[in-house]
Amino acid sequence: MRMSKSFIITTKEAPKDADLKSQQYLVRAGYIQQVGAGIYNLLPLGYSVLENIKKIIKKHMDASGAQELSLGFVTPASLWQKSGRFEKYGKELLRFKDRKDQDFVLGPTHEEAIVECVSGRVKSYKQLPLNLYQMHLKFRDELRPRFGLIRGREFVMKDAYSFHESIEDLNREFDVMEQTYRAIFDELGIKYAVVEADSGAIGGSGSKEFMLLASCGEDTLIICPNCGYASNIEAGKRKRKTYPSLERELGEISTPNLKSIQELCTLGIAPYHILKCVAKGVRMQEGESKVALFFLRGSDELEETKAYNAIVKQESGAMELFDIESEELEKRGYAVGFMGVGCKADFVVFDCEVEQGEIYLSGANKADTHAYVRLEGVSDFADLVAVQEGDKCACCGEKLSYQKGIEIGHIFKLGDRYSAPMGATFLDRNGKAQNFIMGCYGIGVSRLISAIVEQKCDERGIIWGENIAPYECMILISNIKNEEQKAIGEKLYAHLLSQGKRVLLDDRDERFGAKIADFELLGIPYGYIIGKELENGKVELVKREDLSKQSLEISKLFGE
Amino acid sequence: MRMSKSFIITTKEAPKDADLKSQQYLVRAGYIQQVGAGIYNLLPLGYSVLENIKKIIKKHMDASGAQELSLGFVTPASLWQKSGRFEKYGKELLRFKDRKDQDFVLGPTHEEAIVECVSGRVKSYKQLPLNLYQMHLKFRDELRPRFGLIRGREFVMKDAYSFHESIEDLNREFDVMEQTYRAIFDELGIKYAVVEADSGAIGGSGSKEFMLLASCGEDTLIICPNCGYASNIEAGKRKRKTYPSLERELGEISTPNLKSIQELCTLGIAPYHILKCVAKGVRMQEGESKVALFFLRGSDELEETKAYNAIVKQESGAMELFDIESEELEKRGYAVGFMGVGCKADFVVFDCEVEQGEIYLSGANKADTHAYVRLEGVSDFADLVAVQEGDKCACCGEKLSYQKGIEIGHIFKLGDRYSAPMGATFLDRNGKAQNFIMGCYGIGVSRLISAIVEQKCDERGIIWGENIAPYECMILISNIKNEEQKAIGEKLYAHLLSQGKRVLLDDRDERFGAKIADFELLGIPYGYIIGKELENGKVELVKREDLSKQSLEISKLFGE
Repeated sequence: MRMSKSFIITTKEAPKDADLKSQQYLVRAGYIQQVGAGIYNLLPLGYSVLENIKKIIKKHMDASGAQELSLGFVTPASLWQKSGRFEKYGKELLRFKDRKDQDFVLGPTHEEAIVECVSGRVKSYKQLPLNLYQMHLKFRDELRPRFGLIRGREFVMKDAYSFHESIEDLNREFDVMEQTYRAIFDELGIKYAVVEADSGAIGGSGSKEFMLLASCGEDTLIICPNCGYASNIEAGKRKRKTYPSLERELGEISTPNLKSIQELCTLGIAPYHILKCVAKGVRMQEGESKVALFFLRGSDELEETKAYNAIVKQESGAMELFDIESEELEKRGYAVGFMGVGCKADFVVFDCEVEQGEIYLSGANKADTHAYVRLEGVSDFADLVAVQEGDKCACCGEKLSYQKGIEIGHIFKLGDRYSAPMGATFLDRNGKAQNFIMGCYGIGVSRLISAIVEQKCDERGIIWGENIAPYECMILISNIKNEEQKAIGEKLYAHLLSQGKRVLLDDRDERFGAKIADFELLGIPYGYIIGKELENGKVELVKREDLSKQSLEISKLFGE
Repeated sequence: MRMSKSFIITTKEAPKDADLKSQQYLVRAGYIQQVGAGIYNLLPLGYSVLENIKKIIKKHMDASGAQELSLGFVTPASLWQKSGRFEKYGKELLRFKDRKDQDFVLGPTHEEAIVECVSGRVKSYKQLPLNLYQMHLKFRDELRPRFGLIRGREFVMKDAYSFHESIEDLNREFDVMEQTYRAIFDELGIKYAVVEADSGAIGGSGSKEFMLLASCGEDTLIICPNCGYASNIEAGKRKRKTYPSLERELGEISTPNLKSIQELCTLGIAPYHILKCVAKGVRMQEGESKVALFFLRGSDELEETKAYNAIVKQESGAMELFDIESEELEKRGYAVGFMGVGCKADFVVFDCEVEQGEIYLSGANKADTHAYVRLEGVSDFADLVAVQEGDKCACCGEKLSYQKGIEIGHIFKLGDRYSAPMGATFLDRNGKAQNFIMGCYGIGVSRLISAIVEQKCDERGIIWGENIAPYECMILISNIKNEEQKAIGEKLYAHLLSQGKRVLLDDRDERFGAKIADFELLGIPYGYIIGKELENGKVELVKREDLSKQSLEISKLFGE
């Protein structure tokens, strides 16, 4: 491609709201262009990177035996009503009516669509297993789209769905997909971690996330440097902490103005002997809101995803947790700051590290009062704790550390989460109708463009690997008015093209400084500089990664 | 691909509402699956065909110098408001609001989006010309989606948009695109015609359509077998017809019950001397409806697109024509059956073959009465006539004939139809701001799947060309329980794969009859039959196109 004839247009100004380097570089270098909140055009450079990433994903997915197809993007709401998600899925599901007043959604994910697609066509266990995938558009009406392609509303996803006759066969495919994903991300040349994950809105019995490691990541990962245990904090485990028993006389004590754990510690009591009560609002499917109380040791912090999972396990109509105002709690009769054991609420859950039979300092449910209580008769325990750095690994006991990551892949064991409500069955080996056992496997394809840049850049711009870069190399003619430079540049361009290389020729009438700055910004792996070294029969080859330079004899360039 | 492990599932039953062979075959063979009205899943076979077609289109588009990108599919309504089409485009434009109550549309075409994309980035004539294209999703909320992928609501389109500094350069690119399209459709191996076309809702100053010739086509084409003139009937021209003048005394005559042209001819007058008056309703942008009267010779038929174009030329707020009931006309005071010259209406247009100064028999605008009138003082003439088979070619005078076609491509000269209202300018050679001159160029990519089948099939199924077929060849193991057949089949499969062939191995435990029927239905170009000829050291090679058979020595198959 000749840059003079291309739609490759770089700018010096970064968009005002571009918080991340990747967003700044991709916009400035002309890879992407924002259309609206969370909606982007992929300009020729960005589209080319997307296609290169898709090619690598396709190679490995096909090798795994998965088959590519393309499901309707605009999806009849009836499918989502069948699975029960039309009502349950939050506002991220964009719902609309067509001209005939029929309900539709823009597919944010396609479990329903694939079940409908397979159901009725696959009738016997003999046709199983199957793994079907697509790389297609998705739309999620995010409340706060941000970070360029990392949290967009319209995006390209690779979503695969597998169908099995048994859990065992699902487990086998789940492992195949984990290996396939590792091969894909290895070939993309990125640093990532595979972590235990929460299954979230997709549902199912188990999942792993693939996290690209980047300091800007929105996810917190818990990593054991010793045994390799890794988890999203939403699902993180730690070695159970044990503490000495507290010996105090039971009964109320006056605690005016002592509300926080820190304040209560001034009484000479350790935080882990204090029962912290965290109140949250719970938005129910029908629209009303309830109150949930979570009890955990004063030394621990509540992990919200775990808290939500504990509630939804008790009542599946719970849609989400939200922060509830003190005034609202007081209006409902709660003694804010002094809530404790015995307090009534719609949901009450204790963290499973809180020990029954032990004595704790707890709010006494009336103003300015706490009480030493022996915990008894509690039945609802769940893991509620946000694992901290320095907590010990549940597997090996080593100290855990935090890392930040961007979710680039997620694999799920769905079981019959979708096939059961949608009545999707096959005849098993005994001739009996059985629900399909399913898995699903996602990769954020367009998100990867931004995520990779976040990991592969320096203060000058992007640094692509050769297999992802829109061009493998760039030829910079320092001064286009110098006939000799121009001639050699053109000759090299023709030569490299004839070798099947993807080459960008900077033949613009621009200063050399602007050209080298663009080369560095664009992130093309290699640059041939046709400049003043030409007098000595040489051109310079710059490697973008480390900006190292190498002088090359012209004669050798053409294999003469 | 092993058929036993694939998602290739054929059925005997055609869908009830499948009017076309292509629809029946594509559904029965498992290429496509209907999700809702006008929305289809492309199953692995169909997806593979789509990708093969895209590859051919991309090759030629890239060779022409066009650059591929990908524009946001969900489009902010603000862009469409800028061009004025948000209100003007009919109900096919699917409009909706996001969670923040912002207006959006699902892109049915992307002129607005590309103007916004280029505007501000391209600032100088030095950056022109540019041709940018994508192969991406579109959605048009058709009133009556039908014919499988031929008239879907969600579909894949190749849409290209070019930007120029002058009409001359647009004309050059328009020709380049015509040649590029010819190369694409030639490589796809289809029979097509390039015809003059109406520019429709896209607007602009000139356009050509590429029509795949098929008897089921919804478009009527006018073809001159002599000079090659070809046009969509919507834009068709013919040699002007001339007639002897009518000599009659002017004035009213009583014509009880003589309403139709045929009935009036019983008075001994030729149809071409009768002025036919066709009334249509006109739906205006603001919602109200008006009445248009079209006058043409009794021997001619009204072409509705021409009629609409004549109206919109007079008033740009005219949205569409509709059939107006006799009752409604009578309510408005019209003498239905006896309307003629002098009748008042919101719009009155005469066909340009009607001659001023001549005498015609016309309705007298009162019941049971006609009148001989001399046509005078008419100013609104337009070409309104539907050219008939047997009419003479405007270019060479030869008799024209009809053909039916499916629109597969359309190229437009847009001029500044979009750049002007959207204020998209560049600095020209004189340093003055000028509107971009634009062209746009579409190909119905997913539609082509169905359209090609419509042309390439027989009573047994589909007949793909090798470059489009999902697999180049198929190996049919007649009896999978015969170890020798199985061994040779597997060996041939491995051999062909190693040669880089796309091969489908029918290794299912099925009757041979079912396998050969599937081979014929699927339309794979070649089938190797591993059957009883094996005893003689031979396999049979069947060519799908003509079902001709060839006996091959096994040793030669493997190049031994």
